[in-house]
Amino acid sequence: MLQVRSVNILRRRSCVPGSIVFNFKYCCHTAFRKLRICEALSGDEVGEHVKIQGWVRSVRAQKNVLFLDVNDGSTKKSLQVVADPELNDKNLTFGSSVQISGSLTRSSHKKQNVELQARQIQVVGQCNPLDFPFKVKERHDMEYIRQFPHLRCKTNTFSSLLRIRSEATSAVQAFFKENGFLHIHTPIITSNDCEGAGELFKVEPSGQDKNPEETQLHFFSVPTFLTVSGQLHLEVMTGAFSRVYTFGPTFRAENSQSRHHLTEFYMVEAEIAFTESLEDIMMVMENLFKSTTERVLDKCADDVHLFHKYVAPGHWDSLHVMLKNKFKVITYSEAIDLLNRSSENFVFKTEWGCDLQKEHEHYLVKHCGDVPVFVINYPYELKPFYARDNNDDPCHTVAAVDLLVPGVGELCGGTLREEREELLRTRLANADMEEPYQWYLELRQFGSVPHGGFGMGFERYLQCVLGVNNIKDVIPFPRFSHSCRL
Amino acid sequence: MLQVRSVNILRRRSCVPGSIVFNFKYCCHTAFRKLRICEALSGDEVGEHVKIQGWVRSVRAQKNVLFLDVNDGSTKKSLQVVADPELNDKNLTFGSSVQISGSLTRSSHKKQNVELQARQIQVVGQCNPLDFPFKVKERHDMEYIRQFPHLRCKTNTFSSLLRIRSEATSAVQAFFKENGFLHIHTPIITSNDCEGAGELFKVEPSGQDKNPEETQLHFFSVPTFLTVSGQLHLEVMTGAFSRVYTFGPTFRAENSQSRHHLTEFYMVEAEIAFTESLEDIMMVMENLFKSTTERVLDKCADDVHLFHKYVAPGHWDSLHVMLKNKFKVITYSEAIDLLNRSSENFVFKTEWGCDLQKEHEHYLVKHCGDVPVFVINYPYELKPFYARDNNDDPCHTVAAVDLLVPGVGELCGGTLREEREELLRTRLANADMEEPYQWYLELRQFGSVPHGGFGMGFERYLQCVLGVNNIKDVIPFPRFSHSCRL
Repeated sequence: MLQVRSVNILRRRSCVPGSIVFNFKYCCHTAFRKLRICEALSGDEVGEHVKIQGWVRSVRAQKNVLFLDVNDGSTKKSLQVVADPELNDKNLTFGSSVQISGSLTRSSHKKQNVELQARQIQVVGQCNPLDFPFKVKERHDMEYIRQFPHLRCKTNTFSSLLRIRSEATSAVQAFFKENGFLHIHTPIITSNDCEGAGELFKVEPSGQDKNPEETQLHFFSVPTFLTVSGQLHLEVMTGAFSRVYTFGPTFRAENSQSRHHLTEFYMVEAEIAFTESLEDIMMVMENLFKSTTERVLDKCADDVHLFHKYVAPGHWDSLHVMLKNKFKVITYSEAIDLLNRSSENFVFKTEWGCDLQKEHEHYLVKHCGDVPVFVINYPYELKPFYARDNNDDPCHTVAAVDLLVPGVGELCGGTLREEREELLRTRLANADMEEPYQWYLELRQFGSVPHGGFGMGFERYLQCVLGVNNIKDVIPFPRFSHSCRL
Repeated sequence: MLQVRSVNILRRRSCVPGSIVFNFKYCCHTAFRKLRICEALSGDEVGEHVKIQGWVRSVRAQKNVLFLDVNDGSTKKSLQVVADPELNDKNLTFGSSVQISGSLTRSSHKKQNVELQARQIQVVGQCNPLDFPFKVKERHDMEYIRQFPHLRCKTNTFSSLLRIRSEATSAVQAFFKENGFLHIHTPIITSNDCEGAGELFKVEPSGQDKNPEETQLHFFSVPTFLTVSGQLHLEVMTGAFSRVYTFGPTFRAENSQSRHHLTEFYMVEAEIAFTESLEDIMMVMENLFKSTTERVLDKCADDVHLFHKYVAPGHWDSLHVMLKNKFKVITYSEAIDLLNRSSENFVFKTEWGCDLQKEHEHYLVKHCGDVPVFVINYPYELKPFYARDNNDDPCHTVAAVDLLVPGVGELCGGTLREEREELLRTRLANADMEEPYQWYLELRQFGSVPHGGFGMGFERYLQCVLGVNNIKDVIPFPRFSHSCRL
């Protein structure tokens, strides 16, 4: 006889009040209710018999008492476990995984409110201290822990980073949702090349290497690449939703191992219809930065504190200056004047029409009092075909804006898009791109509206907030030239 | 003199109470405050002078009065505009973009509470009705609108779809956040091949086609592919955070144009530490499905209604059955018994050890009363190396589970992962994969814990909720063999 059963779905409290929660079945098999460390530390469960599970962060065996610190990643803090020395076990080492039951009590110790009086300690998985690359109580530098991409989340620093990154991701999503932006999954594989070729990755089916050109044409019927930006696809969507955003991976086949570059990185991109000027998108950039950061500081105070204390001492003050001041605005032409008149010894000399280098960006930010600064109205020749012509003379510019921030340089870039069909058609024709962008021109024929948008590099954002020097240290699995580990 | 200015950031109310909102500067230049259509329709602004911007959905010019319906994508509903016929304009056609100022009044009409008495109407962008592929008041079928990937968001059906997709995305994120899961951006470019090769896309820099093998080895030093799953990377993270998830694009170079396949699709993947049995992950799957769906039904009632009325009549009842019942559970062996004993005329005959085909999945779901059904404990030989051995006899199985749902078939797949180092090492060695998965073995050496997880196809989820037949109609920009438009 066929048995058809149902999964018994239990509900219990989680860290977040009012949430819908699944339960683990063993909770009902024992008198010990399973708690996450963040729940145990909240103090609401004092007096309860509970079970916790996690990884040992420290072991202090004294004559009459055994102390453990156990962490499960739900918070930076560890729970102190107090046990009879008889419960000690030679496998109870730094990095081992444990399951401990006992009762939660108020702690008299200054460092924590709550501790667990252990009744039973079970080592779930051992961790040989000689083989484990991280040592107890040692603060390994970022470069060292970067060598262990499969284990570095077990360090204090990198686990804090990943909690912050997760919270910042939520904060970005919340900002856009609350401001009426629709989220769009823009495609990863694309037949467009939005910002000029050269640094693209191409995509083709594996296992048919004989004639790559043929294979590729066979599969998608056109050459395909990894996206460098979701902008053009977002422009499609502003024609129906007015405000849209995307937040996903983008790619550059840049042959660089510098601390500034990743080949796979995340971009937050927004597009807004019915714009009247660049200020419309600059306001969104500034509010996005400030709103996201305030939320992260609020939700991840302990984790952020670790960075501002150990990784980038003094960075809290710099961040505070960015948050409390209005962002500054200068034109590109003013920036060039300023750089030309500066006594700084730049490697790259400046003149009107040139691109700004990192050294110039840092100088401009410093000049503005280490407050983020918008540079607007770039030379027509410097920006891609879609940038809106300012129709000015003799210094011909487009409505483009870059946001420069302390430490990092360019954080965001945006433009108003050329919504005037004839101007756009001429520019595409001059670049011999009219045919592949026929669909883009058509967007200007059916209820076209003035619109604009920007992209923010998410890793650069995290670097700016935390003061992290190397971009490889703010992404879970960094990809760069000669490195694609795991 | 260098001018350093600040962007004047104004704040005003948005659709969502309590949100931080940017403003558009023209709001302060006129007596008309700019409102989104969803705000205008809320009724809170009746009596106010406002400006709205959007696209014309219908024009009804009568002798004494002009009626327009204007939509801006913020909601499925359009705002009715009532104007003096003198304000009519030959360019005021279906699809044109407009900016209209006037005052909001209560409407006596049954269909809406609020209407806009126009004082000024400006056509921002024309839309030639002869060239525009969509016709006013016509319900174009999905196949027709699919031909216009750059314009289909302007149709009622597809704009509803994208609002639902955006809300479902939020709902998935909220579910995991509320249940203590950390969000991880797992990599897109990877050197792993998690589920066996064959259908992978390879990635290499463009513009250096001479010798692809060499180029590739040059860039990353190893062959690289587009990810088929973030599972192995999530397993890394469960070793520190206990509960993690990812939600991003995954890829299969499947040469199919069927209504079931995309080469680029989105997966929700979760991984949980300290599991005791498959039920631990089945409970998360069931709760994810129900919680996300209830949130979508609550937030997007109008949009979902469109699908259940016009696209898949009767689907609301089917969905209701899924939501109100506990999901069923049968073992793979029971499923095979059932299929063997069935009088159904299957194209593919079944025997113990075979894979289940779509026709079998549909039969099993129907047998269970059109309630989603978990099939558990699959043959050892059918599942990948990481699936946890059930050590049973003579029918050797692993702790794997697939969730089958009405209409779609397989929606989720998951396993407990083999956490026992020796068993895993043997299995990898037998497949000659020990060397590339050395890092994966190491996860079992440093505080290993029993863990498991699953993936849910996000497009299939949307198909299941909405009753959409073709997977190409639930993603903004579908990619499949011979098609990568835009």
